[in-house]
Amino acid sequence: MSTFVIEFQPSGRTVTVEQGTTVIRAARRAGLHINASCGGTGVCGKCRVLLESGTVDGGISEKFSPEEIDRGIRQACTARINTDVCVRILDGAGLKKGQLGTEVPEHHRASKHTFDIDSLREAGLFTPPVEKFFLELPRPNAGDHRSDATRLIQAMQEQYGERHIQIGLNVLRTLRRTIREDDFRITATLARPVNREARARLTQVQPGNWTNRNFGLAVDIGTTTIYGQLIDKNSGKILAEGGCYNRQISYGEDVISRMIHAEKGDGLVRMHELVTDSINEIIDRLLKKQKVDRDEISSITMAGNTAMTHLLLELEPHNIRRAPYVPVSSFYPPIRATDIDLALGDQAIALIYPAVSSYVGGDIMAGVMGSGMYRTDKITLFIDIGTNAEIVIGNRDWLASAACSAGPAFEGGGILHGMRAAAGAIEDFSIDQETLEPMSMTIDAKPAKGICGSGLLIMIGELFEAGVLDQRGRFNRNCDNERIRPGRSGWEYVLVRAEESGTGQDIVLTEVDIDNFIRAKGAIHAGIQTLLAEVGLNVHDLEQVILAGGFGSYIDLDSAITVGLLPEMDTDKMIYVGNGSLMGSRMSELSNHIRRDVVAAMQRMTGFELSEVPSYRDHYVASLFLPHTDASLFPATEKRRRERMGHL
Amino acid sequence: MSTFVIEFQPSGRTVTVEQGTTVIRAARRAGLHINASCGGTGVCGKCRVLLESGTVDGGISEKFSPEEIDRGIRQACTARINTDVCVRILDGAGLKKGQLGTEVPEHHRASKHTFDIDSLREAGLFTPPVEKFFLELPRPNAGDHRSDATRLIQAMQEQYGERHIQIGLNVLRTLRRTIREDDFRITATLARPVNREARARLTQVQPGNWTNRNFGLAVDIGTTTIYGQLIDKNSGKILAEGGCYNRQISYGEDVISRMIHAEKGDGLVRMHELVTDSINEIIDRLLKKQKVDRDEISSITMAGNTAMTHLLLELEPHNIRRAPYVPVSSFYPPIRATDIDLALGDQAIALIYPAVSSYVGGDIMAGVMGSGMYRTDKITLFIDIGTNAEIVIGNRDWLASAACSAGPAFEGGGILHGMRAAAGAIEDFSIDQETLEPMSMTIDAKPAKGICGSGLLIMIGELFEAGVLDQRGRFNRNCDNERIRPGRSGWEYVLVRAEESGTGQDIVLTEVDIDNFIRAKGAIHAGIQTLLAEVGLNVHDLEQVILAGGFGSYIDLDSAITVGLLPEMDTDKMIYVGNGSLMGSRMSELSNHIRRDVVAAMQRMTGFELSEVPSYRDHYVASLFLPHTDASLFPATEKRRRERMGHL
Repeated sequence: MSTFVIEFQPSGRTVTVEQGTTVIRAARRAGLHINASCGGTGVCGKCRVLLESGTVDGGISEKFSPEEIDRGIRQACTARINTDVCVRILDGAGLKKGQLGTEVPEHHRASKHTFDIDSLREAGLFTPPVEKFFLELPRPNAGDHRSDATRLIQAMQEQYGERHIQIGLNVLRTLRRTIREDDFRITATLARPVNREARARLTQVQPGNWTNRNFGLAVDIGTTTIYGQLIDKNSGKILAEGGCYNRQISYGEDVISRMIHAEKGDGLVRMHELVTDSINEIIDRLLKKQKVDRDEISSITMAGNTAMTHLLLELEPHNIRRAPYVPVSSFYPPIRATDIDLALGDQAIALIYPAVSSYVGGDIMAGVMGSGMYRTDKITLFIDIGTNAEIVIGNRDWLASAACSAGPAFEGGGILHGMRAAAGAIEDFSIDQETLEPMSMTIDAKPAKGICGSGLLIMIGELFEAGVLDQRGRFNRNCDNERIRPGRSGWEYVLVRAEESGTGQDIVLTEVDIDNFIRAKGAIHAGIQTLLAEVGLNVHDLEQVILAGGFGSYIDLDSAITVGLLPEMDTDKMIYVGNGSLMGSRMSELSNHIRRDVVAAMQRMTGFELSEVPSYRDHYVASLFLPHTDASLFPATEKRRRERMGHL
Repeated sequence: MSTFVIEFQPSGRTVTVEQGTTVIRAARRAGLHINASCGGTGVCGKCRVLLESGTVDGGISEKFSPEEIDRGIRQACTARINTDVCVRILDGAGLKKGQLGTEVPEHHRASKHTFDIDSLREAGLFTPPVEKFFLELPRPNAGDHRSDATRLIQAMQEQYGERHIQIGLNVLRTLRRTIREDDFRITATLARPVNREARARLTQVQPGNWTNRNFGLAVDIGTTTIYGQLIDKNSGKILAEGGCYNRQISYGEDVISRMIHAEKGDGLVRMHELVTDSINEIIDRLLKKQKVDRDEISSITMAGNTAMTHLLLELEPHNIRRAPYVPVSSFYPPIRATDIDLALGDQAIALIYPAVSSYVGGDIMAGVMGSGMYRTDKITLFIDIGTNAEIVIGNRDWLASAACSAGPAFEGGGILHGMRAAAGAIEDFSIDQETLEPMSMTIDAKPAKGICGSGLLIMIGELFEAGVLDQRGRFNRNCDNERIRPGRSGWEYVLVRAEESGTGQDIVLTEVDIDNFIRAKGAIHAGIQTLLAEVGLNVHDLEQVILAGGFGSYIDLDSAITVGLLPEMDTDKMIYVGNGSLMGSRMSELSNHIRRDVVAAMQRMTGFELSEVPSYRDHYVASLFLPHTDASLFPATEKRRRERMGHL
């Protein structure tokens, strides 16, 4: 895709953007504020700019006179960049000239850390748990009466150095026929044990050479969504991927209501069926897309939280949700995929990520493995933020974990105009330091309907840094601005006025919303601090942060630090791994070492139940401030805020 | 039971016998001949004796006059001993006085070697492959969130030192409920791996203490009969045992016809069903008898020949019977008993004895293990005689095996009046050196219908030693005796005349019969010699003989040596182990070491295919004589024969 350079006046700042980027997004990228109270949807007409050179597509509003259009006046939110261009930000409503192009914090999303097959290969870790081998067996004759099975096992040793092989009854039953079908030329599928001393199992024998057809599946079993990847085990490549809703959702969106259902009558069987139906739907889609046969899938690795894993395996989840929160099992044996009703062949082995505890599940363990945290020297904070935030701190030598009950604020829950990250959700925000006019941008530039989690984070960070919110999350009562007013739920800031919104109502951020947000971020930050304290460290010892989960990809790191969600540190040391559960599952499909290492990692892992750690409560209370009671934990934030507030 | 002393005149020889023994059997025991041509059924009236002191029950014949009865004349075959008694053998038809009480070889049955649990225990080998453990688990609490499974595994380690334990999905699915049913008091069933380094598997968890209920099954899968034993794994005792016909017999008595059937349509499935139905019948009977529940059987060990094992496991037997005779597999993985349709609980593990080759099967391997041959220092000949005779030679350091196709002569096949060892079969025989009058005895003293294998062996040995047969198995044409005559199939010896037989026809032994017998024994002896030669030994190096199988228990060792079936050696060094297959299976149920050792023994075992060893043919031809072309191999036999023939 072509890129173009856009220059903004009067600041003279330039930024390179992709073709089709709107001028307002380009300004945001450049760290410049343009008033846009409607969410960037072309309604409010406040984001007027003057085209000084070059041309843009669109940006014409009926609010403009023909002369204005002639002069080059455009709406920044609907004008798309197609050439190099120079644009002047105009004084909008209530803006003083000196404030044009006020600098706003540039977004620091965590850099995406992708799964690196080559480094896996270089490190000698590319040893799929299930591999295919082509063999030309010596034919039996008068001097060689070895059984078919012995012949095969010895050939595996002689030709590939593979020892200690056991053959299951299923394979033995067709072995005679299979090895003779293509004149003793066969492909043998070998499932390696986790324990080096244990026997490997031959799970499939095919006539002829099929070594180029060795596929696996990686599946993340989320409470809401199930994602799957079809993997070529020879190349390590993802051939197809996709997701679908977890059909259990019909029994409730949250894990607890599903566990309650599983305790009733045949509820457990039903929950098991629903999740396997969902997985089978994805398997079906992925296989069809790539014309891969069910018999060509040699293994499937799955990871999910502890409750999801229990429901998948039909293990009774009763004690997961009751103190003292004990799962049936945290390790799960390798099983035949058909034993848990997955629509795969008899040969397919199902591997399931172990859980640390009832609330730190296999999805987190998969993230720890997939992200490489388990083998880094750096003291690392791994965090997956959702309704529950799971935190792991440690490195190759030790690991400590806990789950924090953050509540649904990050998913828009408990926020008056909160919503999921869908079209019309305000996802980006800045404020003019003097006029307090917002620049709001919505997902898909649709009329604003509400605020999503990432938007909320940026918004609260921006309002706090601009001095509109105090440390306790209260609006500055001294602000004489019509956007800040007492509302039904206490004081509020008007983000989008009714006439410009997608709901016909004012969209506001209330002090109650902010309070809920602070509790959520406070729970997480307190969790981080508690874990650190338990292992005798503090936030300054952290050398790296790994963000996992959907929310992690959208998070603005500076805002997350400003509000005290994440500890203050160089954002370059924060990486984002996306769906850690899926990443770890895929890695297990490609590296048997991981399966061994996960056992070792589990042994190094100490799981903490925060409610049982006395200091947690203190850390929590101290975290119910922006960014924290102890400002010394956030020196840079404090400094920046003071400087910015100096503008007032 | 009471015993009495019987003295025979005129020889003055005495013998101690159990109450109720017939006088003729007592004479045989004493090594004395009494004419009895009807088989000892009270018909011919030739076995007249005079009671000189004491009394007997019965022995009265209508052929006797009242005076004779008064004098104390009795029939030896129907007179039973109830007191100490003195009996004079009378001159029967054609017998000269000097020959009365001619010495005949005393029978040397092999001494029975029984399975010794105490020595197993003393040797530290008493470690059942599946054991039960009682555990009181610590209850979960605020400081102990271990999963149910981890709690259990760690308790096994702490309380019993058992490590590396894996729990299968079946057990996990009920674990939560089970461990709480009796307040965390449970019985765990642990299946040990063969490989020390591998994981043990927890196959069952029961609430409360059930360690006193740990049972196993040992099963010998014979072509004709299936035998089973119910074993108390704690004491090692056999609680019940029994056998039934292998239902496959409806598709043919021999293994080959069943393999042929298994190759057609769903024949293999049918053969599998028939044998599992038979096993299930025995299981059902044994469990009912002892009021043991199916869920209390933790393992079942089975042994059978290679074809039987293939049919049991539904492995295609096609190449077992086709050169170069290759089975599908010689090792069989441990499997769930339900996977092969045995009517046991999910917890039951089925262990199957490995085979050496297509014709030396798991039954033989079980015998080698069960008899202790695999751990003896003595160079041992293990032999199981049937239609096929399987031979193993070796000791703790090395083993060599082969199967000899002996044909059915030992089971009465190919013998004009041959029959199975059933009522009316002549099973014992001696001949008067001068008159050539026989002493024949039938099973159950029923009128003679034919000759069973053990009778045939004794008969040919006796006729040969008496000089009635020459080294080539031909009748001495110089014998002027009405019992030796040309018949339809060449010369023959009349054992029982039509009027005294159970068939209304003369029962004879023909030269063709003898020829068939010589081929059978020759095949076996040649097998022994070939194996010995292949390992650089000869018969004098043998230090021990172990006889297994049904035929072994009835065999007269001296006759077996005389005819050249077994090598000449001290009969005290020959032991009989009965059903070696069942014995080995039982041992595996009680000692996991055996399961490890059998793998090692298999590695030390060289299987020979006799048809491919060039010297076998020469040995065979040399063995087609009584006892052998090379008389130096049987010096004592030769000496005894010469001495006896000196009587003529």
